[in-house]
Amino acid sequence: MADRLIYLPLGGAGEIGMNAYVYGYGAPGKERLILVDMGVTFGDMDSTPGIDLIMPDLVWLRENSHRLEGIFITHGHEDHLGAVGHLWEQLGVPIYARQFTGALCRLKLEEMGHSADIVRITGPRPEVTQLGPFNVQFVPVSHSIPESAALVIDTPAGRIVHTGDFKLDGTPVVGDPFDPMTWHDIASEGRGVKVLTCDSTNIFSTHPGRSEALLANPILEWVMAQKNMVVATTFASNIARLRTLADAAIAADRKVCLLGRAMRRMVSVGLETGVLTDFPDTIGPDEAANMPRNKVMLLVTGSQGERRAASAQLSRGRYLGLSLKEGDSFLFSSKTIPGNERSVGRIMNALSEMGVDVYDADDGLYHVSGHANRPDIEAMHDLLKPATVIPMHGEHLHLREHVLLARAKGMTAEIATNGTMLDLTGETPKIVDQIETGRIYLDGTVKIGAMDGVVRDRIRMALNGHALVSVIVDEEDNALPDAWVELMGLPGRTRNGDDLGQHIEGELAEFLEGADNRTVRDDRKMEEAIRKITRQVAMEEIGKKPEVTVIISRLMAD
Amino acid sequence: MADRLIYLPLGGAGEIGMNAYVYGYGAPGKERLILVDMGVTFGDMDSTPGIDLIMPDLVWLRENSHRLEGIFITHGHEDHLGAVGHLWEQLGVPIYARQFTGALCRLKLEEMGHSADIVRITGPRPEVTQLGPFNVQFVPVSHSIPESAALVIDTPAGRIVHTGDFKLDGTPVVGDPFDPMTWHDIASEGRGVKVLTCDSTNIFSTHPGRSEALLANPILEWVMAQKNMVVATTFASNIARLRTLADAAIAADRKVCLLGRAMRRMVSVGLETGVLTDFPDTIGPDEAANMPRNKVMLLVTGSQGERRAASAQLSRGRYLGLSLKEGDSFLFSSKTIPGNERSVGRIMNALSEMGVDVYDADDGLYHVSGHANRPDIEAMHDLLKPATVIPMHGEHLHLREHVLLARAKGMTAEIATNGTMLDLTGETPKIVDQIETGRIYLDGTVKIGAMDGVVRDRIRMALNGHALVSVIVDEEDNALPDAWVELMGLPGRTRNGDDLGQHIEGELAEFLEGADNRTVRDDRKMEEAIRKITRQVAMEEIGKKPEVTVIISRLMAD
Repeated sequence: MADRLIYLPLGGAGEIGMNAYVYGYGAPGKERLILVDMGVTFGDMDSTPGIDLIMPDLVWLRENSHRLEGIFITHGHEDHLGAVGHLWEQLGVPIYARQFTGALCRLKLEEMGHSADIVRITGPRPEVTQLGPFNVQFVPVSHSIPESAALVIDTPAGRIVHTGDFKLDGTPVVGDPFDPMTWHDIASEGRGVKVLTCDSTNIFSTHPGRSEALLANPILEWVMAQKNMVVATTFASNIARLRTLADAAIAADRKVCLLGRAMRRMVSVGLETGVLTDFPDTIGPDEAANMPRNKVMLLVTGSQGERRAASAQLSRGRYLGLSLKEGDSFLFSSKTIPGNERSVGRIMNALSEMGVDVYDADDGLYHVSGHANRPDIEAMHDLLKPATVIPMHGEHLHLREHVLLARAKGMTAEIATNGTMLDLTGETPKIVDQIETGRIYLDGTVKIGAMDGVVRDRIRMALNGHALVSVIVDEEDNALPDAWVELMGLPGRTRNGDDLGQHIEGELAEFLEGADNRTVRDDRKMEEAIRKITRQVAMEEIGKKPEVTVIISRLMAD
Repeated sequence: MADRLIYLPLGGAGEIGMNAYVYGYGAPGKERLILVDMGVTFGDMDSTPGIDLIMPDLVWLRENSHRLEGIFITHGHEDHLGAVGHLWEQLGVPIYARQFTGALCRLKLEEMGHSADIVRITGPRPEVTQLGPFNVQFVPVSHSIPESAALVIDTPAGRIVHTGDFKLDGTPVVGDPFDPMTWHDIASEGRGVKVLTCDSTNIFSTHPGRSEALLANPILEWVMAQKNMVVATTFASNIARLRTLADAAIAADRKVCLLGRAMRRMVSVGLETGVLTDFPDTIGPDEAANMPRNKVMLLVTGSQGERRAASAQLSRGRYLGLSLKEGDSFLFSSKTIPGNERSVGRIMNALSEMGVDVYDADDGLYHVSGHANRPDIEAMHDLLKPATVIPMHGEHLHLREHVLLARAKGMTAEIATNGTMLDLTGETPKIVDQIETGRIYLDGTVKIGAMDGVVRDRIRMALNGHALVSVIVDEEDNALPDAWVELMGLPGRTRNGDDLGQHIEGELAEFLEGADNRTVRDDRKMEEAIRKITRQVAMEEIGKKPEVTVIISRLMAD
């Protein structure tokens, strides 16, 4: 059979986060493969309580790892490289990344006991990495972290541009400016661009994106206007923003103090890799605590309301000897990611209770997005003139909107969500397979499948409470009538003020006394009957059906 | 001691939702009291899993119910009257409300087996309700539900205006327009307005609010442009919006079908009370299913992503014989309340996967807020010229911002969050007491205190999982070594692939075999040791410390 070019998203298509995209070229079923990005996403109490990280299930790729040539990481955000430490072992091939991104990958690998040598630091275009049928170039793009790259992937079937996260920013403060001439060249070489796999995150933002450089003046003016302690938070990886904030502090005759591990790590990786230059000297929290309040800016982690980050700690009181008070000012130089509103709100209100003036970026003065808006996405279409657009980085709504836009502009476009394998060889993409995909949860130190039932049980316990029933069956197969009931996460008292546990025990005693031998000998029958009685009594008495766990202990004759 | 005028918020001040405000007049500690509003708020998985409703803890008011003259309900939203059915019994005094609001109160009371006579239907100003030292008038204001009212409360110490929820809408489509002349009169009578207790919900919205009437054209144009089935969702209580949507449907030659109990109830109460006139005839779901798709508009509940509402059901497939498909259009004529983004997003994406075109109100074309924005709040200040402003309806951030605004305009202003009792008698409000307040959760059919630990245990089980250990101690106080461990919401396998439960059982067996008699006889010591071992083993093997429940069954000699 003829060789073909395939595309298979395993994460990030039909969702925002957890990016992982496979390209392949070769005979059907024998394509040589590359993986672009290995991201994570974060859990939430609604759907994944207790889960530390969520990763794409790479089972298909693991089964085909003998065909995998290498892994490319576009940039250093967690949703693009966060799974490197956890999942690399399953794949075992080299990782290619630019210097700053590579340094972050190495930290992840080393934390999990892997070698830093797995990462091959790769320069930007014109440097080419040849892997099997693929010639891959990293092309600098602007984004909210330094050294972001799109990939130009040349294959025998034509050229693919995989944008990664990008925006059109000619003055990004730190990192590479977006360079239209480079992209013009990329579009003009050879047969041009066959497929554009394109970021869709901001497809619903209809105004043109704004440059990071626009923030310098408003932020400086804001800092100058404050009279006491100044605190600012943003994503630690947004080094350009840290630079803008720190520059404003220095211009306003304030010293900068970095609070939060991620913040210090990012600045130090930035400095080590040369991505960040001229970052002002910082002071430690001890020194900051002893300075006049109007001479300090704290740059802190936790812009998304993370419970353990510096912002949250400061909002709860003293942190590393520092505390905020009446007349201090706190700037959220960030956008609240949907779903985090409540956590961020809690911190803002706690600060307000201290008398701290809270500023957010809602009016656009103190934050710009890192993603291309709709007009910028259109500009990218127009620059690259691809035959086909495949939207990625987006929920279904985003992908669909992007497809409709591309089609309206005369391009071919197709939605491929996680697991959909497209054959890109011909003029129009064809769906050729649907691969089982899924999510892997990191729970403590163990990886579990999303469908294992562990999280489902947690959610059920959280919603319904948990009743435990312990029953003892003696050596002669008689159930002892005094079942023991323990309740967790359930009201102890019924509507009438009775003890719910005792009430259930009473009903169970009645059942156990009357239970015939056949039932008592059968664990499953016993469990079912006990569960049913427990749930019925609870429903009558408190209007809820709890989860029930039954433990039957059978005494053995000596 | 001299008589005094007091204000005591028990809910809604320092939060959005769950409104309940007390005013009192008389000798200190003997003031005669009125309560304004009895609202609820809704739980969420983050902080209140499994909780059906959250209500203010009225313990202070219950203890002082002999001093309570009556309850006034400003309007029919759940955050203002939702607790009437659940908490009225604790207070036992008449409820005063306008006709539409009163009808909703009566439904709530009757559902809980109380008499409809508790509610005294009261006409708007100039009608005056005299209760003890209070003369109270309902003054029509515009809001997103018909018959909203502010209260003018005249006391021997002066006039209070309690705005309730309001906006400045001269053309609200349904219900009373905002009438500046009335408010001018209220400000001019007697000594004018002493205290304005004022809605703060939209204090951070800097543009003037927009009228409901502005939506008619955009919505009509939108409906006209759709080619297949049209679905629209909004709050069921926003009868003006239902009217606007239904009018557009009729103008576009479509029949209207109401889906969702709340939607049908609101329209029928609206018609019965005469608040709603000329609502077009509706068709049932059967009829709608048999009509050509371009001749129907479904008006459905669930704009906030509620799992069981019609929107969610339609997004999951067939509902009452109706299902959506490629080319249909779905309008969210609503704002997503912070915290509901994920649930709403899930529905939108599910609709997108069906090929349904989803429209939201983000560009302002298809929704206006029901609350006064910052310039409107200022207009209210200017109309009423109160000596003192007390902001309500807001998180601390909102109250603080409102206080700063009022002070900047030369008025006295004070933050009073739930439980803060203000003495309003003098020129400036004085904090005179701090009352214990709190939240009551409706869990199934039982009311529990927020601090009872039930919800805390649910959250812990959801985050950490739950391990149950059953141990038997024989007649001679020997612990049987085979402890039984059941895990719920925990990975069954350790990092090395071992069975976690068996692993814990093994460690417990070792402990039980070696346990001395003194330990075995002591339930608490046994429990502590078993809990510690279980948590340690789990931490080592899976990196998590579960909640542990221990059941020790002691066999008795016959």
